[in-house]
Amino acid sequence: MASPGSGFWSFRSEDGSGDPENSGTARAWCQVAQKFTGGIGNKLCALLYGDAEKPAESGGSQPPRATSQKAACACNCNQKPCSCPKADVNYALLHATDLLPACDGERPTLAFLQDVMDILLQYVVKSFDRSTKVIDFHYPNELLQEYNWELADQPQNLEEILMHCQTTLKYAIKTGHPRYFNQLSTGLDMVGLAADWLTSTANTNMFTYEIAPVFVLLEYVTLKKMREIIGWPGGSGDGIFSPGGAISNMYAMLIARFKMFPEVKEKGMAAVPRLIAFTSEHSHFSLKKGAAALGIGTDSVILIKCDERGKMIPSDLERRILEVKQKGFVPFLVSATAGTTVYGAFDPLLAVADICKKYKIWMHVDAAWGGGLLMSRKHKWKLSGVERANSVTWNPHKMMGVPLQCSALLVREEGLMQSCNQMHASYLFQQDKHYDLSYDTGDKALQCGRHVDVFKLWLMWRAKGTTGFEAHIDKCLELAEYLYNIIKNREGYEMVFDGKPQHTNVCFWYVPPSLRVLDNNEERMSRLSKVAPVIKARMMEYGTTMVSYQPLGDKVNFFRMVISNPAATHQDIDFLIEEIERLGQDL
Amino acid sequence: MASPGSGFWSFRSEDGSGDPENSGTARAWCQVAQKFTGGIGNKLCALLYGDAEKPAESGGSQPPRATSQKAACACNCNQKPCSCPKADVNYALLHATDLLPACDGERPTLAFLQDVMDILLQYVVKSFDRSTKVIDFHYPNELLQEYNWELADQPQNLEEILMHCQTTLKYAIKTGHPRYFNQLSTGLDMVGLAADWLTSTANTNMFTYEIAPVFVLLEYVTLKKMREIIGWPGGSGDGIFSPGGAISNMYAMLIARFKMFPEVKEKGMAAVPRLIAFTSEHSHFSLKKGAAALGIGTDSVILIKCDERGKMIPSDLERRILEVKQKGFVPFLVSATAGTTVYGAFDPLLAVADICKKYKIWMHVDAAWGGGLLMSRKHKWKLSGVERANSVTWNPHKMMGVPLQCSALLVREEGLMQSCNQMHASYLFQQDKHYDLSYDTGDKALQCGRHVDVFKLWLMWRAKGTTGFEAHIDKCLELAEYLYNIIKNREGYEMVFDGKPQHTNVCFWYVPPSLRVLDNNEERMSRLSKVAPVIKARMMEYGTTMVSYQPLGDKVNFFRMVISNPAATHQDIDFLIEEIERLGQDL
Repeated sequence: MASPGSGFWSFRSEDGSGDPENSGTARAWCQVAQKFTGGIGNKLCALLYGDAEKPAESGGSQPPRATSQKAACACNCNQKPCSCPKADVNYALLHATDLLPACDGERPTLAFLQDVMDILLQYVVKSFDRSTKVIDFHYPNELLQEYNWELADQPQNLEEILMHCQTTLKYAIKTGHPRYFNQLSTGLDMVGLAADWLTSTANTNMFTYEIAPVFVLLEYVTLKKMREIIGWPGGSGDGIFSPGGAISNMYAMLIARFKMFPEVKEKGMAAVPRLIAFTSEHSHFSLKKGAAALGIGTDSVILIKCDERGKMIPSDLERRILEVKQKGFVPFLVSATAGTTVYGAFDPLLAVADICKKYKIWMHVDAAWGGGLLMSRKHKWKLSGVERANSVTWNPHKMMGVPLQCSALLVREEGLMQSCNQMHASYLFQQDKHYDLSYDTGDKALQCGRHVDVFKLWLMWRAKGTTGFEAHIDKCLELAEYLYNIIKNREGYEMVFDGKPQHTNVCFWYVPPSLRVLDNNEERMSRLSKVAPVIKARMMEYGTTMVSYQPLGDKVNFFRMVISNPAATHQDIDFLIEEIERLGQDL
Repeated sequence: MASPGSGFWSFRSEDGSGDPENSGTARAWCQVAQKFTGGIGNKLCALLYGDAEKPAESGGSQPPRATSQKAACACNCNQKPCSCPKADVNYALLHATDLLPACDGERPTLAFLQDVMDILLQYVVKSFDRSTKVIDFHYPNELLQEYNWELADQPQNLEEILMHCQTTLKYAIKTGHPRYFNQLSTGLDMVGLAADWLTSTANTNMFTYEIAPVFVLLEYVTLKKMREIIGWPGGSGDGIFSPGGAISNMYAMLIARFKMFPEVKEKGMAAVPRLIAFTSEHSHFSLKKGAAALGIGTDSVILIKCDERGKMIPSDLERRILEVKQKGFVPFLVSATAGTTVYGAFDPLLAVADICKKYKIWMHVDAAWGGGLLMSRKHKWKLSGVERANSVTWNPHKMMGVPLQCSALLVREEGLMQSCNQMHASYLFQQDKHYDLSYDTGDKALQCGRHVDVFKLWLMWRAKGTTGFEAHIDKCLELAEYLYNIIKNREGYEMVFDGKPQHTNVCFWYVPPSLRVLDNNEERMSRLSKVAPVIKARMMEYGTTMVSYQPLGDKVNFFRMVISNPAATHQDIDFLIEEIERLGQDL
């Protein structure tokens, strides 16, 4: 059984399952590690070349378990007694109560946090190693039974706590792995990660300048910069980092309603006419969720038709607006999408803006997924017209690779958020404090406490520069085009829509040989709909890669490939294609 | 100028501003550090005893600035050329693009992340050091000008990035400091911190089991345990971790409305009668924010009178319910508070439950602040009746010391959240996946992506056990009682309400000598109202401690002391009193 600190994060290249190249990598790694600080160097080398305590396992399939065979001490060397720095830190005898703020807690605290860090660093390194699995999949019931996750009255010792950290990461998805393509948010940025660790350590919230002076200023600076990039003059306007795109979209709907009918804040929806929101049939479901929550009702969200590429059809929007007005209802919001979830489509924002202007409707742009393209001189034209929006959702945690969560809502009119949400709670926002209270952001939020989400974006921006984000975006879009070019004419593939992808979404069916001979009838559709789920299940069981699939409208299950991970390369795209064919050819 | 890695986090005991005890601490520290891994040991010692590169500064008041005088390499030793492990990692020449996933990125990545970690560990250690400032206060305009925070096109090198980390922490509030009492959330738990670092590293979200298998299971296990503690049979029911108490309360309101009028989801508020919510005049402002957002309107939130201790008066609740019903409106929610923000009052839950039962109204308990007391056998009676609630907000990030954000909404009826919020987006929640889909939590949330907030609570719970949380709670309440006993009869203090505090909130006026001789008239009130703001401003400028103040109703500005930080001791309470008197005696 592995003791904590010695890792069971074995490098697969050493147990024969990796390719020869990786064995070399491991060796090179060890040379690197040995030059590094003692703690991590020794551990990494032990991992790379194996050590006596390491269990005979393959690919990490053996779950670690709490064991009665306690490690004697935190150091992992073979000399007993040893003179290692942590020689007398015995985690089996230590508990949380021995850590700071305990008297004499400094030493075990530093040892413990450093060991946690070593576990994390090992995980980071493995995340980028193509010879490791993306996922070590277990069914929910299996996973519940394989390990004791229950909470008890009595404390566990720090050895057990370190073990839990290892186990948790063992079963985690390596979302930074170069072959993880499952979500719109992928990748693991090293500066962003460092910034998130710092955020955790600072452990405060965005409520007031008083308790988050730097973070409040960084939010101010960063939101202003984002508004400049959107194209609002001088970066003027307002905004907030919210817990995610769905909440950002809900904010937009809330503010749009308040702008038109401020009395709704006090009197509720009963005091106003029936309000109607418009968004495309390919838009994100959060618009409907928001409408349900805000008392508008999902029936009052009208889904506008899309063309075959998933873009909203402006003439249909105008037709539906007129229809609604004729009924005496009030159109109050159009939410255009810049980068739809499945197709990656960009609604024609200029045409939408013209219609919103004509009918005096709040124009929101849900650029949660597509906003990142504003950083690219080559691709930002796809969002032309965004500068005419009244509000924009833009999630840096998606295309820009910022760690989760990082979603911004930008609002063109300053002060509106504050008027909409403030409750004048003088016991929370004292008006006689000694600094400029305009920096207290708490009362413009729906939330009271609010997590610090800005620092990781800000630090990444300093580290990459706008040009660095641009390079990242351009590279991911180039990779998507590479994939598109390979499969568009390849046997066994059918594109869900024609033409080059506008975002990194590449949507396709893989058609196994047995289906290629069939006529395009219902039976074929029915069989085709089962192909992607089976291939996906096999991908997860092998753990080699992950990509999403879904049906949409009358289109049966197809793969939706997205690329936001800067670790991905042409070879990873090639690998994905080979893997789909390997796992699907017998279907 | 300090180079990154060498810290400007000087120990004040060494520059003469600390007490002698701390000088000894520093020396002991160094002995500890020297036994520790090379990197941090050397750095900590350099900090403790000073080094050639350290600027002559006092108390960290000198902001670090980007400098043209680059450090030659990441190592900090004085031997040139040296043989240190990081001797040839030159951050001034490295950029984010040199880190993983770059080829040969492993070594600079490990060096960089380790150096970030060293900065964080130094901050952690300083956070618990009473000789350091709680805050190095600067006015917003000052802070904006003292450092260049702007975002640019071009990248900065890693030396600059490390500098930004140091600068950010320099100006941060030490929320873990034993003398930081400003918010309901204070303290820095070492296991919680480790868990939050791990959460950042795993970088996923709670959307589906597919992408967060362990975290989804831990949420399941933890919420069930919390429901058991609330007293729902077998821990049955439902729940979710949300981005904070305000959102949790909004969820409760949303679900209560849906339970009574499910058609509101599709048809909006126009389709239902006027709905009325009830909460006490001391309750949190998020109830009103939620009502405004949900289209109910703040006029439909009726504030029930409180007794002099801040507890809701049940007879007034019943009176107002009858009044509303007579008008033909529909009472749909009573939100009782267990632990009000200012007084720490517990509404009489049993009496409220009886009324809710009688009139068939959803009973919500906002135990964001008071929920922690459920972990204490000595104090949980204060929440008697919570088991009769339909929903409960409980923020482990407050009284239980879990790092921000960690707020749970617990719901007694299973399946209701799902019915209320689900949108059946088949493109997001594929129904033909190969595992038990009941573990996919995404569609019961208002959010789409959702941050992983459970792991830090879960790991802390394993490390402390329920009994550890109990000890923490009991200790904080004992400290509050200690403070109360000191000041209740002390000259110059007046209690805002009589009697022992029920939570850790101790509310009082400090009356400077010049006011003690005045009659209790308007002039005295007016002068008294200015005392707390001035003392608070002075506290922040000296940086010695932080405690909140506010007016409430007809009561002018008073201090609200709260204790949730396990680092605080009797001596820190004594210090607070001395400090208030030192800073306020001339007023």
